[in-house]
Amino acid sequence: MKTLNLAMIGQGFMGRAHSNAFHQVNHFFDTAFNLNLNVVCGRDENKLREVASRWGWSETETDWRKLIDRPDIDVIDIGAPNHLHAEIAIAAAEAGKIVWCEKPLAMDVAEAERMVKAVAGKPNLVWFNYRRVPAIAFARQLIGDGRIGEVYHYRATYLNSSGLNATRGNTWRYKKETAGSGAAGDLLSHLIDLALWLNGPISEVCGLLKTFVPGREVDDAAITMARFANGSVGTLEATRYGTGNRNRNMFEIHGSKGALVFNLEDMNRLQFYDVNDAPENGMRTILATGPGHPYVNDFWPPGHLIGYEHSFIATLADFLKALHEGTEFHANFEDGLKVQKLVAAVEESAEKKKWTTLA
Amino acid sequence: MKTLNLAMIGQGFMGRAHSNAFHQVNHFFDTAFNLNLNVVCGRDENKLREVASRWGWSETETDWRKLIDRPDIDVIDIGAPNHLHAEIAIAAAEAGKIVWCEKPLAMDVAEAERMVKAVAGKPNLVWFNYRRVPAIAFARQLIGDGRIGEVYHYRATYLNSSGLNATRGNTWRYKKETAGSGAAGDLLSHLIDLALWLNGPISEVCGLLKTFVPGREVDDAAITMARFANGSVGTLEATRYGTGNRNRNMFEIHGSKGALVFNLEDMNRLQFYDVNDAPENGMRTILATGPGHPYVNDFWPPGHLIGYEHSFIATLADFLKALHEGTEFHANFEDGLKVQKLVAAVEESAEKKKWTTLA
Amino acid sequence: MKTLNLAMIGQGFMGRAHSNAFHQVNHFFDTAFNLNLNVVCGRDENKLREVASRWGWSETETDWRKLIDRPDIDVIDIGAPNHLHAEIAIAAAEAGKIVWCEKPLAMDVAEAERMVKAVAGKPNLVWFNYRRVPAIAFARQLIGDGRIGEVYHYRATYLNSSGLNATRGNTWRYKKETAGSGAAGDLLSHLIDLALWLNGPISEVCGLLKTFVPGREVDDAAITMARFANGSVGTLEATRYGTGNRNRNMFEIHGSKGALVFNLEDMNRLQFYDVNDAPENGMRTILATGPGHPYVNDFWPPGHLIGYEHSFIATLADFLKALHEGTEFHANFEDGLKVQKLVAAVEESAEKKKWTTLA
Amino acid sequence: MKTLNLAMIGQGFMGRAHSNAFHQVNHFFDTAFNLNLNVVCGRDENKLREVASRWGWSETETDWRKLIDRPDIDVIDIGAPNHLHAEIAIAAAEAGKIVWCEKPLAMDVAEAERMVKAVAGKPNLVWFNYRRVPAIAFARQLIGDGRIGEVYHYRATYLNSSGLNATRGNTWRYKKETAGSGAAGDLLSHLIDLALWLNGPISEVCGLLKTFVPGREVDDAAITMARFANGSVGTLEATRYGTGNRNRNMFEIHGSKGALVFNLEDMNRLQFYDVNDAPENGMRTILATGPGHPYVNDFWPPGHLIGYEHSFIATLADFLKALHEGTEFHANFEDGLKVQKLVAAVEESAEKKKWTTLA
Repeated sequence: MKTLNLAMIGQGFMGRAHSNAFHQVNHFFDTAFNLNLNVVCGRDENKLREVASRWGWSETETDWRKLIDRPDIDVIDIGAPNHLHAEIAIAAAEAGKIVWCEKPLAMDVAEAERMVKAVAGKPNLVWFNYRRVPAIAFARQLIGDGRIGEVYHYRATYLNSSGLNATRGNTWRYKKETAGSGAAGDLLSHLIDLALWLNGPISEVCGLLKTFVPGREVDDAAITMARFANGSVGTLEATRYGTGNRNRNMFEIHGSKGALVFNLEDMNRLQFYDVNDAPENGMRTILATGPGHPYVNDFWPPGHLIGYEHSFIATLADFLKALHEGTEFHANFEDGLKVQKLVAAVEESAEKKKWTTLA
Repeated sequence: MKTLNLAMIGQGFMGRAHSNAFHQVNHFFDTAFNLNLNVVCGRDENKLREVASRWGWSETETDWRKLIDRPDIDVIDIGAPNHLHAEIAIAAAEAGKIVWCEKPLAMDVAEAERMVKAVAGKPNLVWFNYRRVPAIAFARQLIGDGRIGEVYHYRATYLNSSGLNATRGNTWRYKKETAGSGAAGDLLSHLIDLALWLNGPISEVCGLLKTFVPGREVDDAAITMARFANGSVGTLEATRYGTGNRNRNMFEIHGSKGALVFNLEDMNRLQFYDVNDAPENGMRTILATGPGHPYVNDFWPPGHLIGYEHSFIATLADFLKALHEGTEFHANFEDGLKVQKLVAAVEESAEKKKWTTLA
Repeated sequence: MKTLNLAMIGQGFMGRAHSNAFHQVNHFFDTAFNLNLNVVCGRDENKLREVASRWGWSETETDWRKLIDRPDIDVIDIGAPNHLHAEIAIAAAEAGKIVWCEKPLAMDVAEAERMVKAVAGKPNLVWFNYRRVPAIAFARQLIGDGRIGEVYHYRATYLNSSGLNATRGNTWRYKKETAGSGAAGDLLSHLIDLALWLNGPISEVCGLLKTFVPGREVDDAAITMARFANGSVGTLEATRYGTGNRNRNMFEIHGSKGALVFNLEDMNRLQFYDVNDAPENGMRTILATGPGHPYVNDFWPPGHLIGYEHSFIATLADFLKALHEGTEFHANFEDGLKVQKLVAAVEESAEKKKWTTLA
Repeated sequence: MKTLNLAMIGQGFMGRAHSNAFHQVNHFFDTAFNLNLNVVCGRDENKLREVASRWGWSETETDWRKLIDRPDIDVIDIGAPNHLHAEIAIAAAEAGKIVWCEKPLAMDVAEAERMVKAVAGKPNLVWFNYRRVPAIAFARQLIGDGRIGEVYHYRATYLNSSGLNATRGNTWRYKKETAGSGAAGDLLSHLIDLALWLNGPISEVCGLLKTFVPGREVDDAAITMARFANGSVGTLEATRYGTGNRNRNMFEIHGSKGALVFNLEDMNRLQFYDVNDAPENGMRTILATGPGHPYVNDFWPPGHLIGYEHSFIATLADFLKALHEGTEFHANFEDGLKVQKLVAAVEESAEKKKWTTLA
């Protein structure tokens, strides 16, 4: 077993999710690495000590710059607000670190491009964790096996109702300066990453941004139509005003041979329709906990559900596998850049009120 | 086209459902018969006139005995309270009429046996209408084709919440004298008929009857365990106190090759699980409106739902087909008697607090 | 009771649905009118005779023009292909007939405007039948009562998979000359009518049309984003390539106080979310069959489902009520024109690849 | 923080679930204890080393007797096959250890009674982990608050399809000598524990046991009817032949004011029906991940699902809280004995084919 020494920047929700993954990955997966939780870094010292104590980080640090040149750190994991991603990631990469970064990768395309350059040739990761939800990984496998045939429609929604909670409006996620965008970067980015992963490149978008609260700096909802390179058409819709939903990251795909439906609020299930089932044809509600499903040997026996946190654990496991084998891991910064370009194209088209073609 | 002249006894809910079927059967099905709605019979003259006017009955009558010997009547349809079934049916049969009768067939086994004797050799029908719900008919077809293999479990519930409505307690359905029993005859009888039709004979039962309201004469809930001749075991549970449900006539069947689930509150769908689907195995939610499903050519194009009333229309259509072809129709009085015996066995076992073996 | 003498032009699917409604309306509703099924008109004489015989039409006719001046006809009901709507409706209106017309009202806005002028001051109806699905009518009532508050999002899909059936491509619905458009007029028109009825005027649209089969004359899919006058934003998506769905006319509405979800494939249910339910808050799955729901006293007791055909029956009942009371019925030709303008705007925006503002 | 030194006996599925809980409890909860994973004990040395290495147990041991008198062990956690529970637990308790034990508590009532005596006055726990599923804990809270009123019906099923997998038949769970019973102890015990916890004491049962495979020593299915002390009636049904289901631990409760439905295969949700919602009344599908739900502050933000393993973590957290505060924890050995008595009563009634009254 080799050792990876970790420093994590960020002490909020993502800090918890990442810390948990660092602890759990070797409980469930056979990786080639021991992970040392060396330093957790953030600005609120009291909270930082609490995080370190709870999750077993050896040290705390309030200035991320001090981490960059420490020889006892192999990995910089960035869970800080969006406006800090580029500066930290580039400094870390230039110092030779492995860099892991939360999504959206950057504040804009220019930043993302510089980040991609900086990590060139070095292992890197963007936490598009939903790719490793077993049901989604299984969906991709079915698509790859040709089970839904030629795709006609791709439809995705990411609905939560965080905007309804007025107290949230003061956090960094609602400020232009720290978040860059609202639902677009926070939620639509997830939809775009999954769309690219499951249905391939997007050639054109036509977007609509909406802010419901007067004076709010960022979009509350980001919607786009899309034309995919494979000839299919799509709609992607993200909102913080999806009353009645807490975390509905959902997609539906209709093809010539079948259809797929997934909803993160019901994340252990995949719905699959096979036209060959006729006349006994109906959406099959697959409990994607095995046997025969991705990651089933790693978590619990068939029928025993996993939760949100497991998507991070499986992402990390796959990264460590790729690191060990010297293969390329996805989603990496290049994937993050592709998403960034599409978010930018959606924003541009929304402003110009017409379609934008991707370069 | 031959003509059948009808007299219907009963002017309530079932009177409406039957009248509708008489009107609609030739709109949807190709039968060999014209149906004349000659006489509607009941005790409340004002209501009777309203029923006749609305549904196009030519005459009204308040004394069912006067119908029996009328030569212009071919069919006596009995929708009156349970305690009148036997007397009317036997008189009608002896007068050479075709007899149709609502369920439960009789007040007890002795009555039912006399009724079966009276109709011997003459076309007859019991309105176990749910056999002809397309999704249920499709379930039977899948069972017959061996698609669920050897059966292990049969589980059925009929849940409504009519008992919660205190005003219902004064109607005939809550009196021993007029209804004979409560949930047992009203709801459990439907479950038993479907169980026999879908899963074959029952050899033993062990029942439980419960009346929640002090002083009420009939059971509010009737539950039974059952051993089937095919080696499977079952539970059947009927109640008027199933808060949250209005008309949940549901069954689940688990076999060596698959499973089936149906719920009357979602009557256009059948759920089917095929063990051969693995690893893409999950309950298939089949919208049983065609193509390839029973009665689909008779009602609307695929995807267009039917409702409660269509089960009566399809039952009548199948009866008329059997009448024309000279074949035996089911559910008939013999089927009604089988159900009656099982209801009686459930009642006996509930009283004795032990299992009862069917003769 | 007054009498209305009917002539119906059209002998296909809609001919059946309308004929059924004409027969059934007085069985379920108390109207002030007897309906005489006088003449059914179509081009295929053999099929016409079959329709007349099955549904009780007194006469058949192959030339609709001969109907226009017959004094024994009060109502002309148009279920013919789209390209015939305008000519027939205008002739009938000018001859003083009451006119009922299938949707989409016309081939284009100009036709629709002439039709509106022609029927001015006379009772008229467009068969946007889904407004009278009880669950949808109940949704509108909840919206009207302020139960979902200020609306943020409106999302609608109409998904069937008729396009996958290659034999359908030869029917009139797939020809430019007879249908005018594909999914846009056939399916999106329903979504637009419901959107206007439930969420008010649309001020801007940005559409996308897609034809998957090379050489096909009409759109297979019609998608649009929309801005509503009330400040909400929406997506409406109609397709004949929605594999896995047969008739999914679905909407979701998110507001400040609640949310609503409906799906025609589950047409007896409405989902309703009330933010005041917290912490016991979740989508309520309402079986909209009463008590307390629209049309419940007209059809069957609570818990007994209705089907597709009942939406036509209830539409006709409401029209007859309005006719009797001298009030204005909706959806009428003016409503049909509004939909036509929006379909045209979607088509225009799709062609120009930018947003179109409604006049 | 005090320290608890743990020894765990068992190296299979439960060994993993417990080890995980020991690691995770302080990540999510604020407890007063550090847990040291001192010794893992089992019979397969190779597997044992693998378990110790993966989960961080300091030592391995193949003879559980050697653990009993070690002063460096505070807690004996028993995850061994059922036939070892009593001997280990009694020895551990007599040596002054805190004892945690998997369910079913014992092989029979006599064993369970001796175990209860042995742990008298000492902290003890039975791993009826489902009590701490947040949705179930929330159900109990609603019941306690009177939200479903007087209870009429309790209906529970535990359906998996493990029996269909022929290779399972050779494991200890299918042997009389090691498991004591089949579905009765393995699955029905969970249903009984939840029934007692949610609906109070059971006064009478009437059971049915079924073994589908000839020659198999234990029951494949265990079904019972039940009469509760509160006047409600119930059915509880557990089977390893529930084709189409993997882990369906489900209950439905109908009361005078509402209803509740839960299914472990959808463990983040609780369905709740409130009669006061009329006419907007329907099952509310509550995503029981907060806000306002049990354990929500401990795991992830609202809308982020938890999995199977979290039920063990929360159980342990509650035990540690009780230990710290000196209060009584449930489910403890006395609760395990109650379940054992009911399992025995079900078995007795199944054999005698009549109802058995609980002492």
